[in-house]
Amino acid sequence: MSDVVKKLTNLGKSMVKEINNNSSPTFTTKLRSRSNINYDESIGVLRLGDKREERTFINVSQARRFMQTIAVANKCKKFLNENSHTSIRGLYYQLKFSLGANLDEELFSEQGESNPLIEDLELALDVKREDLNLSTARKGVVAGPMVLKDKFAGEKVEIDLTKQGRSGWMIPSDVDNGMEIDSINAEWVLVVEKDAIWQRLNEDKFWKKEDCILISPQGQASRGARRLLRKLADKGLPIIVFTDCDAWGWYIYWTIKTGSMNLAYLGLDIAVPESKFIGVTMQDIKDYDFLDKLTITAKPIDIKKAQDMLSYPWINMHKEWVKELKTVIKTKKKIEQDALQGPRLSFISDYLRDKKENERFLP
Amino acid sequence: MSDVVKKLTNLGKSMVKEINNNSSPTFTTKLRSRSNINYDESIGVLRLGDKREERTFINVSQARRFMQTIAVANKCKKFLNENSHTSIRGLYYQLKFSLGANLDEELFSEQGESNPLIEDLELALDVKREDLNLSTARKGVVAGPMVLKDKFAGEKVEIDLTKQGRSGWMIPSDVDNGMEIDSINAEWVLVVEKDAIWQRLNEDKFWKKEDCILISPQGQASRGARRLLRKLADKGLPIIVFTDCDAWGWYIYWTIKTGSMNLAYLGLDIAVPESKFIGVTMQDIKDYDFLDKLTITAKPIDIKKAQDMLSYPWINMHKEWVKELKTVIKTKKKIEQDALQGPRLSFISDYLRDKKENERFLP
Repeated sequence: MSDVVKKLTNLGKSMVKEINNNSSPTFTTKLRSRSNINYDESIGVLRLGDKREERTFINVSQARRFMQTIAVANKCKKFLNENSHTSIRGLYYQLKFSLGANLDEELFSEQGESNPLIEDLELALDVKREDLNLSTARKGVVAGPMVLKDKFAGEKVEIDLTKQGRSGWMIPSDVDNGMEIDSINAEWVLVVEKDAIWQRLNEDKFWKKEDCILISPQGQASRGARRLLRKLADKGLPIIVFTDCDAWGWYIYWTIKTGSMNLAYLGLDIAVPESKFIGVTMQDIKDYDFLDKLTITAKPIDIKKAQDMLSYPWINMHKEWVKELKTVIKTKKKIEQDALQGPRLSFISDYLRDKKENERFLP
Repeated sequence: MSDVVKKLTNLGKSMVKEINNNSSPTFTTKLRSRSNINYDESIGVLRLGDKREERTFINVSQARRFMQTIAVANKCKKFLNENSHTSIRGLYYQLKFSLGANLDEELFSEQGESNPLIEDLELALDVKREDLNLSTARKGVVAGPMVLKDKFAGEKVEIDLTKQGRSGWMIPSDVDNGMEIDSINAEWVLVVEKDAIWQRLNEDKFWKKEDCILISPQGQASRGARRLLRKLADKGLPIIVFTDCDAWGWYIYWTIKTGSMNLAYLGLDIAVPESKFIGVTMQDIKDYDFLDKLTITAKPIDIKKAQDMLSYPWINMHKEWVKELKTVIKTKKKIEQDALQGPRLSFISDYLRDKKENERFLP
């Protein structure tokens, strides 16, 4: 029996015990509301505090949610025993199918009801939804000197990330269960916001020339991409992030670094506080002459996002970032990664090499 | 010199000749406006008619566009000679960088100006933008008994699509230049709208058990995915499409089958009129009892899309589709692919097997 199945079984057993003792079964999880999310300065990560939430079955306002939670736990145990995965949408339909039939009331009327219960369960059992055989939306691509071993659907395959050609390897939903890093021959990791820029760098063989793992989250990083970055950081590789020069690009960096409000409940499992920022910065406009004429006017929504970011204490504590954000607000300019192709297509590689050699990073 | 570089060179030479003959240089392309898009019933594809558009340099209203077109052609020739690719955004920044400096007027002020010129050039030279070393947004995943040979950035790699584990191989922007199908050991191709369902079928080893290539366009199909499907159809493999049961899902099928208005200028290069539709259909609600309670209410925007589709002659000519679309409009219901996981996760595989064996396809 796997550890997770054991945890699910014990959850059920403890409830049965409560019932046999003539008390109401209870379910305890952590409170995920904003009031219980803190920035933990000691590790540099957004995480939940200690506030807990207890639900009991014999409580008119809690009985429905209680039942739903048990139904979710029951389905996940079944998926684990069957060795099958599904999405949270698939879980929802399974619940709707098997519970709707014999009840007067529909137990799940929309997916919005089952999603928070999954998070409740993740916290109650101290597991991730990926450990419950629930797949998440995947996004992101990786290439470079690393070999992965993937044990999947009864077969083992080796994925050599130097042999993925023009496409690279798609980062899966779950990079933990059944998957391990067999060998790495890289010295650092470069995270590139945009897929088009990743393709440019892949064609330049940047990962080969610079001994790095080349990753694009293809926008905001998925759970899978963030877990992969955490695992690479755990192997001691520096994580260097490269985004557009605007509040939205920078926010992609900050989400990788400190985690996000939504996923604060996963804490350090999904954050990389060690990561550093290589560019693009407003300072680059001064350092690379040609960039000035390739800037774009920042829209009100960009300015608003920059103002929001200035108000986050974990960003505001870095004077370099305060300066960058204030420059955006003052000059109302932004720069895309793509603009670095202006002088010549391979200029992006030179720019990254130059900034890395001189360690011109932001914290 | 590659064929495409030759075509670009000849375009330039013919203009120089015109200038030497004291006439204005001209540029001829096909008209891409709605008035020149027809459904060609003989091949079952949306394509351009014969209307042409000629631009001359000595014409106040055409001079700017003329110059811009030549600038785009010039950059693409450079990319081809350098053996480097970039996105149309990268092309835009190159144009802005090299042309903005020495002119009183900015030659390109926004990307909207360079995009249509690329299509003009594709048509004038009878090439695709991928042949001009311009990469396009990529999306889509593939697995199954097929081996690809990818010649990329000076290296050759073999991509064995039976050995891609949980992730599958990401469909690249360009599946033609430098890429070929080395061997296929499949009898048909299944196209699955949603990535989550693709993952489910991949875990069930559907492609292995059913001797098929398993593709998800991950929503609306990209140029790369559509080209790959065209190539597989050219190898004689039946293309079977599986989407949500609603007008949006069905439209994904129709775009694969007949092409789309936007890309009508590529005609049969990017359409697969041979493709067939396996489901999900409104008829399935009658054939699979449990589906009725897993339907969703169609929104006004879904009904509107169904009405639009009824008005397209190439859809309206099929009585089966008229019946399906009218049923949506009448019952205001829709069904997701995901709902087929209701009874058990592997039911999707059984559903597809059942419908394929009994050839219950829509045209």
